[in-house]
Amino acid sequence: MANFGGHAIPGSFFLLLGFWLTVKNILQHYWRTSQPKGRQITPPFSRRMNYIEGGLLIFGAFVGIMVEQFVVDGPHAHLYDTEHNSWVKLMNWQHGTMYLFFGISGIALVASTASKLVPAGVDRLALSVALFVEGFLFYYHVHMRPPLDAHIHSLLLVAVFAGSASTMLEVFIRDNIILELLRGCLFILQGSWFYQIGFVLYPLSGPEWDLTLHDNIMFITMCFCWHLAVALLLVACISSVVWFTLKRFSGRGQDIEIGMRKTTSNSSSQKALLEESEEE
Amino acid sequence: MANFGGHAIPGSFFLLLGFWLTVKNILQHYWRTSQPKGRQITPPFSRRMNYIEGGLLIFGAFVGIMVEQFVVDGPHAHLYDTEHNSWVKLMNWQHGTMYLFFGISGIALVASTASKLVPAGVDRLALSVALFVEGFLFYYHVHMRPPLDAHIHSLLLVAVFAGSASTMLEVFIRDNIILELLRGCLFILQGSWFYQIGFVLYPLSGPEWDLTLHDNIMFITMCFCWHLAVALLLVACISSVVWFTLKRFSGRGQDIEIGMRKTTSNSSSQKALLEESEEE
Amino acid sequence: MANFGGHAIPGSFFLLLGFWLTVKNILQHYWRTSQPKGRQITPPFSRRMNYIEGGLLIFGAFVGIMVEQFVVDGPHAHLYDTEHNSWVKLMNWQHGTMYLFFGISGIALVASTASKLVPAGVDRLALSVALFVEGFLFYYHVHMRPPLDAHIHSLLLVAVFAGSASTMLEVFIRDNIILELLRGCLFILQGSWFYQIGFVLYPLSGPEWDLTLHDNIMFITMCFCWHLAVALLLVACISSVVWFTLKRFSGRGQDIEIGMRKTTSNSSSQKALLEESEEE
Amino acid sequence: MANFGGHAIPGSFFLLLGFWLTVKNILQHYWRTSQPKGRQITPPFSRRMNYIEGGLLIFGAFVGIMVEQFVVDGPHAHLYDTEHNSWVKLMNWQHGTMYLFFGISGIALVASTASKLVPAGVDRLALSVALFVEGFLFYYHVHMRPPLDAHIHSLLLVAVFAGSASTMLEVFIRDNIILELLRGCLFILQGSWFYQIGFVLYPLSGPEWDLTLHDNIMFITMCFCWHLAVALLLVACISSVVWFTLKRFSGRGQDIEIGMRKTTSNSSSQKALLEESEEE
Repeated sequence: MANFGGHAIPGSFFLLLGFWLTVKNILQHYWRTSQPKGRQITPPFSRRMNYIEGGLLIFGAFVGIMVEQFVVDGPHAHLYDTEHNSWVKLMNWQHGTMYLFFGISGIALVASTASKLVPAGVDRLALSVALFVEGFLFYYHVHMRPPLDAHIHSLLLVAVFAGSASTMLEVFIRDNIILELLRGCLFILQGSWFYQIGFVLYPLSGPEWDLTLHDNIMFITMCFCWHLAVALLLVACISSVVWFTLKRFSGRGQDIEIGMRKTTSNSSSQKALLEESEEE
Repeated sequence: MANFGGHAIPGSFFLLLGFWLTVKNILQHYWRTSQPKGRQITPPFSRRMNYIEGGLLIFGAFVGIMVEQFVVDGPHAHLYDTEHNSWVKLMNWQHGTMYLFFGISGIALVASTASKLVPAGVDRLALSVALFVEGFLFYYHVHMRPPLDAHIHSLLLVAVFAGSASTMLEVFIRDNIILELLRGCLFILQGSWFYQIGFVLYPLSGPEWDLTLHDNIMFITMCFCWHLAVALLLVACISSVVWFTLKRFSGRGQDIEIGMRKTTSNSSSQKALLEESEEE
Repeated sequence: MANFGGHAIPGSFFLLLGFWLTVKNILQHYWRTSQPKGRQITPPFSRRMNYIEGGLLIFGAFVGIMVEQFVVDGPHAHLYDTEHNSWVKLMNWQHGTMYLFFGISGIALVASTASKLVPAGVDRLALSVALFVEGFLFYYHVHMRPPLDAHIHSLLLVAVFAGSASTMLEVFIRDNIILELLRGCLFILQGSWFYQIGFVLYPLSGPEWDLTLHDNIMFITMCFCWHLAVALLLVACISSVVWFTLKRFSGRGQDIEIGMRKTTSNSSSQKALLEESEEE
Repeated sequence: MANFGGHAIPGSFFLLLGFWLTVKNILQHYWRTSQPKGRQITPPFSRRMNYIEGGLLIFGAFVGIMVEQFVVDGPHAHLYDTEHNSWVKLMNWQHGTMYLFFGISGIALVASTASKLVPAGVDRLALSVALFVEGFLFYYHVHMRPPLDAHIHSLLLVAVFAGSASTMLEVFIRDNIILELLRGCLFILQGSWFYQIGFVLYPLSGPEWDLTLHDNIMFITMCFCWHLAVALLLVACISSVVWFTLKRFSGRGQDIEIGMRKTTSNSSSQKALLEESEEE
């Protein structure tokens, strides 16, 4: 996938995942803070969102592996070519391996949502492992490339490993909204950086970048920080918009909420409200 | 031990240890979750399993050291050859040192199970130190080898140091089933990777691997991820099988359990049940 | 800004920030320990101090970016010179990027002080990210320089990354006075080290330093430790002075305090007292 | 101090400190576990031990700095020789800097024991910083030396930085006997390794070591693990001996203890007992 599209597809995927996680986590945080203490049931909209997220991860991973295998110049499920004594299209196999682990994290998410027997946190551990594997494979990916190419990929690793570390922390520190938003932010950063890599290595228009010029490396380093700033800004904006939308809806539903606090057993009306705002 | 057998023996050992830890930890987790709160006594089957584990570690370490010393081409307890002014078989001494620390961790496990005076967590600290020492010695082991040989050993270090770190975390975060299963998973990964090293460096059949080819290094990196995926799958399967076996047995013993919750002082019947399922 | 002034300005900024943080944290700690348990409202002087700190960070960042852009030999908001096909004054753009993130941390501080909706800890996360970005850009700043120049900048990184790590810890471990003072101490260290860099690279008087002599590198390493010792001493002194000043004032106001413990709802008199001592 | 004595003195110092810490921590742990819950006053013997430890650290640091400065071939408080335009005896100044930080940690220990105003944990932070500074200076110490010399010093760094990290953890996880014993163990390891360095680089008898032979490096790596095993063994033995000595004395004083649990306000008899066993 050494072309612009090959970077735009994972980029779009990670951008979407980042936005999705931000919205999901703000919804869950709103639910947690608006609940009276003691009532700590996972809200039904949260379960449904987890199923959707897990399902999409599994589906995406499956499609990704199939595409990498059976694309025109793919390995077509051949790993070793005994005729020429060489490995067949290892790049595609490596990408498939990365997808596999995101698929596993999707399975873990579905399983831990569906059953109480699966210990809480398994989904985050699996996501952390998926990010680690992605970074791990990329790390050995970038050997023997021109300086700018190696540098721009190693900056990607900063986002990947930071995401892996912050997701691993979530295994132990649960329901911490800062960590949850940080995870979303790092996914957005990773996604937008994939686009940046595409623009730099396979420019759609204009002159090619000089892959050995030191000034280019300096600019790209700074550019990574700008992407981070934009990702932080985006997460802050999305969070605010989602929060105040929820607030306005809850404001209308104030009477219902007051009623609820008296009859805590029947909380279906508020749940319906939350699901409504989620489906928008 | 520079042959296939020399890698298969530690590989089998770590595979077995990984399976054992997974089963033990699921049993303990089942016991913890099925107990009413407040009753937090260590179950007797758990103590017995710890004794067996510790005893086997001590026995294995002792046998390992003896074999490394008194094998035909071993050092026979000679460290320095004053005649030739050279060290005698340092490789064997290094392997013996690794065994020694696993033996120490066995002693720590037996001691902390036998006596309440030994602070809880000493066994995990000792195991973490044993893994650290293993990785530490391997790290200086792999200098000046062909690229693929060095790379395949340094991948082993990833599993070893990750195991050491996760076991160290268990000193502070106790009874966390995710960490416990992660430890089992990393032991299985380490064990299966030992086999992989054996297959690559001393192939039983077929052509020898080219130890300098970059494609081989790329394949091996990816192969490590596949081992990790298989290890995760194995731990998930074993856990499920053990859990549902316990469930079925407890299902039969439901009446007993209900009876127990009334007479909490006499819990011998359930314990017997758990030990029964453990001994299968 | 490759001159003495260019290092003295950030140096003074970080020194001031370090002193300010030390005083603020000691005031907050005094308030926390002198309050009866259960009453955990943020004191009003603390809010006002946070507004001042945040406002100054935003203002400083804005001025800094403007100066870097529109100084005589600055880039004047031009990033790429299409005529010569080269980047324009990347150094100034990098410094501006660093200021930007400190500005963002100022916004986060103001926002998290003003609204309860912003989760506690966002300000520390933003400050940690700002320090990380500073270190991150500096890290790629120092390539291809003479040994002493590279070394003296890499020592700065020790202070910057230690500050980033300790601030990140504060996201999770809140209201820990040791971490808070450590943060102040690391800012002071960073500030005084900026001055040291200025003195070494652009000596105001006397002979130039030999940038390749090994003895100079050894001295500078040791000198960094002396700066650390002085920073620790300064934080200890400032803390003691602030604490005992507060004590003396509270001593006078003892009767008020005793009165307060009876009428906990009306705590305006003590607050006024604390604000008085803060404004000195 | 490039001779055997120059390594034996810090070695003996760290060995003694390790033994002292082990005994002190076991005494404190015994006190903590034997106290009924709720009564969590620091025992008087503990305060006295802290004063002694802090005083000795301050005294030792002062003597160390003086010796390094005013030894026959020392710098005699001259830092820069303007005549020859060179630094004067930087090695001695560096050693003095290390002593300085251990002196500071002594002051922090005395201060935090003497006054409740000094936040708990400052003494551990100061000790952690002292170890960090020691490792930091050593790290730049070992450049451009023969391989074995550099290697044996970098192994020392493993003990130093592990000690710094575990002491830093104690700032946040207090009264954890495993961490406390680990600290003692790492000091013993550091002390015995100083002796080992002395024996290798300045052998008292026998032939000199070949500083470039790879086998020597392999042996020294393994030897470090043996030192670790011995340090673990020593800490285990000392802890057991101290604990059972305390037990026997408490056994005799059983009646007193039973009496105490009735009259909790008057606990002077048991305290006297503990102090008695401490002074042996």
